[in-house]
Amino acid sequence: MRIDLNSDLGESFGPWAMGDDPAMLDIVTSANVAAGGHASDPETMFRTLGLAAARGVVVGAHPGYPDREGFGRRVIPMPPAEIGRMVAAQVGALSALAQMAGTAVRYVKPHGALGNLAAADAEVARAIAAAVGALAPRLALLAISGTALEHAARAAGVEVFSEIFADRAYLADGQLVPRSRPGAVLHDPDAIADRLVRFLENREMPVLDGGTVRLDAHSICVHGDTPGAVAIARAVRDRLTGAGVTLAPFLTA
Amino acid sequence: MRIDLNSDLGESFGPWAMGDDPAMLDIVTSANVAAGGHASDPETMFRTLGLAAARGVVVGAHPGYPDREGFGRRVIPMPPAEIGRMVAAQVGALSALAQMAGTAVRYVKPHGALGNLAAADAEVARAIAAAVGALAPRLALLAISGTALEHAARAAGVEVFSEIFADRAYLADGQLVPRSRPGAVLHDPDAIADRLVRFLENREMPVLDGGTVRLDAHSICVHGDTPGAVAIARAVRDRLTGAGVTLAPFLTA
Amino acid sequence: MRIDLNSDLGESFGPWAMGDDPAMLDIVTSANVAAGGHASDPETMFRTLGLAAARGVVVGAHPGYPDREGFGRRVIPMPPAEIGRMVAAQVGALSALAQMAGTAVRYVKPHGALGNLAAADAEVARAIAAAVGALAPRLALLAISGTALEHAARAAGVEVFSEIFADRAYLADGQLVPRSRPGAVLHDPDAIADRLVRFLENREMPVLDGGTVRLDAHSICVHGDTPGAVAIARAVRDRLTGAGVTLAPFLTA
Amino acid sequence: MRIDLNSDLGESFGPWAMGDDPAMLDIVTSANVAAGGHASDPETMFRTLGLAAARGVVVGAHPGYPDREGFGRRVIPMPPAEIGRMVAAQVGALSALAQMAGTAVRYVKPHGALGNLAAADAEVARAIAAAVGALAPRLALLAISGTALEHAARAAGVEVFSEIFADRAYLADGQLVPRSRPGAVLHDPDAIADRLVRFLENREMPVLDGGTVRLDAHSICVHGDTPGAVAIARAVRDRLTGAGVTLAPFLTA
Repeated sequence: MRIDLNSDLGESFGPWAMGDDPAMLDIVTSANVAAGGHASDPETMFRTLGLAAARGVVVGAHPGYPDREGFGRRVIPMPPAEIGRMVAAQVGALSALAQMAGTAVRYVKPHGALGNLAAADAEVARAIAAAVGALAPRLALLAISGTALEHAARAAGVEVFSEIFADRAYLADGQLVPRSRPGAVLHDPDAIADRLVRFLENREMPVLDGGTVRLDAHSICVHGDTPGAVAIARAVRDRLTGAGVTLAPFLTA
Repeated sequence: MRIDLNSDLGESFGPWAMGDDPAMLDIVTSANVAAGGHASDPETMFRTLGLAAARGVVVGAHPGYPDREGFGRRVIPMPPAEIGRMVAAQVGALSALAQMAGTAVRYVKPHGALGNLAAADAEVARAIAAAVGALAPRLALLAISGTALEHAARAAGVEVFSEIFADRAYLADGQLVPRSRPGAVLHDPDAIADRLVRFLENREMPVLDGGTVRLDAHSICVHGDTPGAVAIARAVRDRLTGAGVTLAPFLTA
Repeated sequence: MRIDLNSDLGESFGPWAMGDDPAMLDIVTSANVAAGGHASDPETMFRTLGLAAARGVVVGAHPGYPDREGFGRRVIPMPPAEIGRMVAAQVGALSALAQMAGTAVRYVKPHGALGNLAAADAEVARAIAAAVGALAPRLALLAISGTALEHAARAAGVEVFSEIFADRAYLADGQLVPRSRPGAVLHDPDAIADRLVRFLENREMPVLDGGTVRLDAHSICVHGDTPGAVAIARAVRDRLTGAGVTLAPFLTA
Repeated sequence: MRIDLNSDLGESFGPWAMGDDPAMLDIVTSANVAAGGHASDPETMFRTLGLAAARGVVVGAHPGYPDREGFGRRVIPMPPAEIGRMVAAQVGALSALAQMAGTAVRYVKPHGALGNLAAADAEVARAIAAAVGALAPRLALLAISGTALEHAARAAGVEVFSEIFADRAYLADGQLVPRSRPGAVLHDPDAIADRLVRFLENREMPVLDGGTVRLDAHSICVHGDTPGAVAIARAVRDRLTGAGVTLAPFLTA
């Protein structure tokens, strides 16, 4: 049994901190690093990349709408081709800083409202996959299995890996339970870790309404932006390794 | 006789246009393209890069302080190492978009207040040279001969090319006459073209106070942000080619 | 016969100019001045306000989404109450600068995507009317007759004036013909001026598909962001005054 | 014995929090609220103003350089008149939101690098005093006694109040000990409270190098941006009130 742990990191901005990046970088094997769109700035990127490099954590770019005030959680209406260019610019900025920090950006995972749109909108997904596919050295995409983004990556010849969410409940069709529904978000570290261990044994995820759904996953996404989140992430890591799971990145640094 | 013509281009932002980039890209052989610091945005970058690629104009990055309101003409106090990271982030963003536009960033020329500081301040120059030197594929720097930036590039093993300014008067030590002095800026296209042709014959530039100074130059910088400037640039090009000068980029696209 | 002429002005930003504000301020009687959201900055506001003050042109605030890159033409998803606060902040900034420039902001007209949303969405309209109504000294709203914004202003006890567009064709229900339809935008200064003179005689506006529609108008909106637009605005002004129409602001400076 | 306690508050931005504003607003009698320059946004301003209004805390504007990334700690080179306009725009934005929140901006205290410059540079101080003096309703300034800003306020007929810093050591001339010197910043809540109580008895402040200096103060500035800072502020408040000092704002809400 082998899986990657990823988390969204490097989401501070100027004087404002978010999350505990050093703690999370001791837990995860892949880091989705904000790239100056919804969060971050050159100093925050460089610092985060250096922390990741020092721990051998693999780095992905985490591009988002250029909307710090809204933290990338608002859809800024843009033609898909413009979205592709916006993603490329952010990935390029992070990649340059990764070189200065002695590491490399290996994959791309869209953030927030952009991630949701890329999962659902085939044209946006194609634009992002095309942008990622145009960049050298070759980059992969990290997506949710079954989404438009995964399909677009495959169609564009871009390597794609899939993730599940540690603390989110699932529907029978493999979609996440919307946050507005009771039970959508799991809070108990033990329960979260238990279901992940069972999932790794049989690739079947419990469904909120009963039963299970088969999911594809190269990585488990854990959150790190609250103290409680760090504790959950650490519990997940400890329980998985205790159960004999090997935690390893889906790509090499 | 052979020389490059360069100009600062791609300095529009969102709905606001600056200069006549298509006209200037028909004139110059190298384009210093704004990279989202003092000007530009992903769409403007991509559009400018596409215009350059279509004409075979070689592309350089033109990073500046992240201060669109001040157009990069104000020094934002930053430690030199932060300046290096800021430059890397902008070069990276432009480089990614260059790949999407079918071209490549080949060199870096700092803009405005950053360019002035890099010419005068050895520590800032070293930070910029180190940042440029850390990026792959290899990039060159475009600098004024004799400046701290040229020296720092040499010391860092970064290839460096030198430029002179078509419309600026020089002092006996090779420095530009400050804009505050009468005669600092030349306006007559014929006079400008004449002195450049003579300069290319003997590498001696007239000095405002009399005599000449020996200058090193791989490129002539022409401005394009006013209608008059475009006319001067065109006159310079026509007169140089008429005098048998070969206009060619100092690097290949 | 008496009417106001208004135009969206002060839409430059930092080093980038938009439109010919001095020319337009010689034409209009009311100026909708950008307030740092979709365009402008303190210097541009102050300069525009000073030009308006010197000509006795009445000043309104022209708030827009805080999205210079998109020039306020993109809907940034925000709860209505947040829109109200955003509008208040922009109006407040412009009002303070108006005091420094020796004038006063007298009314508010939302810009671009915000204007369109405020015309159609009752909740957004109410939030804007509430924000405008909370500010002292008292401000009015400038809206299109029959829109949600006009209704919300009335309901909130905020004085409201209505405008028509000089260069836009109308539908039988008084709505603007969408720009996507042929004939939506008028370009001939004479034809534009003719229909406005006739409208002022009988308040009936020609409908694109034939017939006329009765419209309410305290002001005619003219555009000034292109050289051609300035010529149309001037023609409208000259023809109206030639036909005996008194051009005067709907509020006093 | 009677004094005001002030603190810099409302310095969050979008998704990023700074300090514990509710806790500090239970401690201070005047709040210097960030106004969208170095920090904040309309939502943060409105929320902070509402918290202040609910507690009867008097509100001042805390304008800073428009540089969130640098948190207003970097001097952005601007002509003094532009600084005045920048300050007016921020004060105006905050004032409008204060009206929506049921309170009013009563004074202005420049932030960070702008505050330092206004204390030392007579021309900048005059520009800020002129801007503040141009706004209605009348506003006061909060400054350090003996600074250029205090003098400029007096010369411009702007009411001015003076502050001392709870946690900073003083020199014999009444200036703050530079942070680079050992002993510049005090950390022990008891020691801080003790010296303030003694200061309020005789208006003599201990000097780091020995002796005391007579200082003028209507207000004591306490910091709130770290958990330790909140504890110090609370200790100062408790000790002052325990010593019979009346804590009351220097202006009325």
